[in-house]
This record gives sequence, C-alpha cells and structure tokens, in this order.
Amino acid sequence: MGISAKNPLENDDKNDEDSSEYDDVLLTEVHHVAIAVFDLDEAIEEYRETWGVWVDHREVLEVDGVEVAILKVGGSDVQLITPTRDDSPLAAFLDERGSGLHHLAYTVDDCAAALEAAREAGHELVDEEPREGVLDSKVAFIHPRTMFGTLVLLVEDRPA
Amino acid sequence: MGISAKNPLENDDKNDEDSSEYDDVLLTEVHHVAIAVFDLDEAIEEYRETWGVWVDHREVLEVDGVEVAILKVGGSDVQLITPTRDDSPLAAFLDERGSGLHHLAYTVDDCAAALEAAREAGHELVDEEPREGVLDSKVAFIHPRTMFGTLVLLVEDRPA
Repeated sequence: MGISAKNPLENDDKNDEDSSEYDDVLLTEVHHVAIAVFDLDEAIEEYRETWGVWVDHREVLEVDGVEVAILKVGGSDVQLITPTRDDSPLAAFLDERGSGLHHLAYTVDDCAAALEAAREAGHELVDEEPREGVLDSKVAFIHPRTMFGTLVLLVEDRPA
Repeated sequence: MGISAKNPLENDDKNDEDSSEYDDVLLTEVHHVAIAVFDLDEAIEEYRETWGVWVDHREVLEVDGVEVAILKVGGSDVQLITPTRDDSPLAAFLDERGSGLHHLAYTVDDCAAALEAAREAGHELVDEEPREGVLDSKVAFIHPRTMFGTLVLLVEDRPA
C-alpha cells in the first residue's frame, strides 16, 4: 500500500556482494517501551484509573538499580521504571531530563548474535555482552548516539 | 505471575462510588512508537541494512508538516518522522532535543470518547478534538505534562 513499500525479493541491491545482510531480520517485534517515572505507584494508579491499563508484573532489577512495572496494553507491554537507589543511571536520567520515554526494546531471537551484528555494523554498545533482564530475559543496550537518539534494548526472552 | 498483578474483579475499590471507571479499558493496544529523525532516508536505510526492518508505508501529513515512514517490526509499528517545513513543531523538537523518541501512540476504539475521558480526568490536551492522522486515522495528542513526560497520541484506526 505504501509508496515506498519494499520487498526483500525485489531488492535493488540484490547483485551487491553484501546483499545477504538484507535477508537477516534481527528485530522480530517491539518488545516494550519504557517510561521513566519518579513515583511508580502514582504512575501505575494513573494508568489504571484513567486508562484502564493494569500491571501484570513488578520486579526490582538490582543490577540496574531500577524497579519495573509492566503495564499490559492489549498484546503490548509498556514498562514503567523508577530508580531504587541514588547511583542508578536512571536516577541521573530523571535528574537531567525528567520523567518521559526512556528506551525502546526490540525482541531478538539471539541477543548475542544481534549484539555482534550491531557491533559489526559500527554501533556503539552500552553492554558488550548480553546480561540478565526482567523475567530472566537476556538483554543488551545499544547507545542512542548510533540509533538516531534512541536508547535501544535488545531482548531475548527466556524460552517458555 | 507478578507480585502486584491486579484483576478488575478483585478491585479493592469496588465499593467506591466511582469504581465503574475501572471497568473502562480505553487504551487497547500500543499503536506505534515514533522516532524523530533529521534524515528519513538515512534512518530507513539503517533500519533495513543493520536490522532487517522494512518500510511498509510512507506519507506526508501536510497539517503537521511531517513525513512519516512506518517500519513493520513483526506485528508492531515504529514510525520514523521528519519535518517537511521549518515551521513544523517537529522541526522545533529536533532543534531543541535532537533526534530520538518523540511520542507513544495508543490504539483506542473511539478517539473522541477517549479524549473526553482524558479531559474529565484533568489531562492537558494538545488537540481539543480528534483530527486526521496517518492512513485516515483519527488522532489526538495529550500533553506530556500530565502523562509523566510522555507525549501521547490516541489513535482510532479507520475501519477496515
């Protein structure tokens, strides 16, 4: 339908040496959007009372110094996140920029492989290796400097 | 599974006079996440080459002074947006903050009704009435000041 719709099978670079990269779909889904807030309970209550959206899971990630509340919005997840200690990077984010959109997370099949592809493509990595995320996922951040100003999290969910 | 999972049927406010509001699910899905970029073609190419994500639709919204490219990431949409003229509010956003996450859009069944609920709940509205969005949707922005720093777009899709 779109005027610029593209199809890998009609790729006009198909004769280029490196065209094989176009076959690799690394980002398979938007995993979640994360919103940094000062007061987690206040945000949870507001989303519930005004918007009818409920928290499905709540977890403290000690390594990051954050508490996460997952709002289920239909089949999508929105994470409300708040720092649990003053030296959390998220506390610095809130001090500097206030509450607001913090990161965009994409689902990947293999976090280590996706991270390696990002490294090879010249992306600046925040995490050199996958590490533990919410609900025993494997996660890695890519720096906003090479992602059009967006802090991106790659998430490999724990097998069901 | 979550320690704070809540169920409307077990709502501890169920005896309150205004408990009926908890039954109204206004936000039915994350509709899209929008990323403001300076160069749309560059961003589209980067998402395609590194991440294997393709543009499904591209459209200029004259009223907003923006061009939109919809990236399909599995069943999710990520919009890359760029200004088409200097007096576009998005041009001011880019000047002030640089590229990055711009807004979070939620699907609603009825944009006018959701907007009215937001008004009644005390939210600051950017759009007093629904207006035309991408792909003939009805949309309305809510100001970040009352949405935890996040510019929120309510989207009622055109009936299929």
